[in-house]
Amino acid sequence: MITRTQVEQAQTRAAQMLAKAGITITLVERQTIEVADFGLGELEKTGLQLVEYINTDRYCAKELILFPRQTCPEHRHPTIAGSPGKMETFRCRWGHVWLYVAGEPSAMRKGRPPVGSEAYYTVFHEIVLYPGEQYTIPSDTLHWFQAGDQGAIVSEFSSPSHDESDFFTDPRIRRIPEII
Amino acid sequence: MITRTQVEQAQTRAAQMLAKAGITITLVERQTIEVADFGLGELEKTGLQLVEYINTDRYCAKELILFPRQTCPEHRHPTIAGSPGKMETFRCRWGHVWLYVAGEPSAMRKGRPPVGSEAYYTVFHEIVLYPGEQYTIPSDTLHWFQAGDQGAIVSEFSSPSHDESDFFTDPRIRRIPEII
Repeated sequence: MITRTQVEQAQTRAAQMLAKAGITITLVERQTIEVADFGLGELEKTGLQLVEYINTDRYCAKELILFPRQTCPEHRHPTIAGSPGKMETFRCRWGHVWLYVAGEPSAMRKGRPPVGSEAYYTVFHEIVLYPGEQYTIPSDTLHWFQAGDQGAIVSEFSSPSHDESDFFTDPRIRRIPEII
Repeated sequence: MITRTQVEQAQTRAAQMLAKAGITITLVERQTIEVADFGLGELEKTGLQLVEYINTDRYCAKELILFPRQTCPEHRHPTIAGSPGKMETFRCRWGHVWLYVAGEPSAMRKGRPPVGSEAYYTVFHEIVLYPGEQYTIPSDTLHWFQAGDQGAIVSEFSSPSHDESDFFTDPRIRRIPEII
């Protein structure tokens, strides 16, 4: 759960980061920045801010804004009713981000699972993305990511998005924000 | 036809515009910026520069760079072998662009078809896009666009791209550049 005040504070902070990066959004987009706390009540550690530009039955594009060291928790986009899950490309625009996928765990990793949630992080192959760099995640594939010390802005280009169907490793997580 | 020197000059100019807009691309992307002269040999008037970020069988994302008053000529993305043509969302990032689609011709239009090619422009409903503004073009729908006096940078989010299948109103046009 997250309070309306916390949502508004996070929206303001995300909007400031977008402005700093030279990324313009409309007033309506500014007022509707999505603040996802994943139901854990620790937005600074585990959370994500999103501006959804377009989401049709053919494609989707979003801007993701992460505060310094904020983590989007481990999840995958499963097959739904025979349709392959979301495939997505993360392109770093500002700051930098550490992305973790299945594969050989990287030594000397820069990111760390949020304290207290270590049990729910299982993939540790590190991809580092600086501005202009990108990585594509196949459907139904576990991944998580964490911003560096400045925070990060990441463009997400993908097949259609069905956030409510995302499968998170941490069973406590609720993807759709509950604002109180 | 376009010469290698003209391509390199246009790539340099497009890269300078991206840098000015704060949009970072990789060295490989910089070296492979696509310069489309549409076979008309008048790149300054009729042309487009593109950075293709990703094009899979599920979605596509590109950055389009237009020089001042440069025009992407009228075209549509037709159905191919029963698959619906490309649907695309244009989101202005920098400068401004005038987009023309079917519908009531707008009075006092800002854009003009390139001199000598007026016969090949048939839709005149004007959509003006400033940074943060966007518009979605359904598949198989005629459209063309022209940058304002500063030029423009436009993100294109879309279903998969098959440029070679685009249908242009002007029969002289060749979408795939021929570099001599």
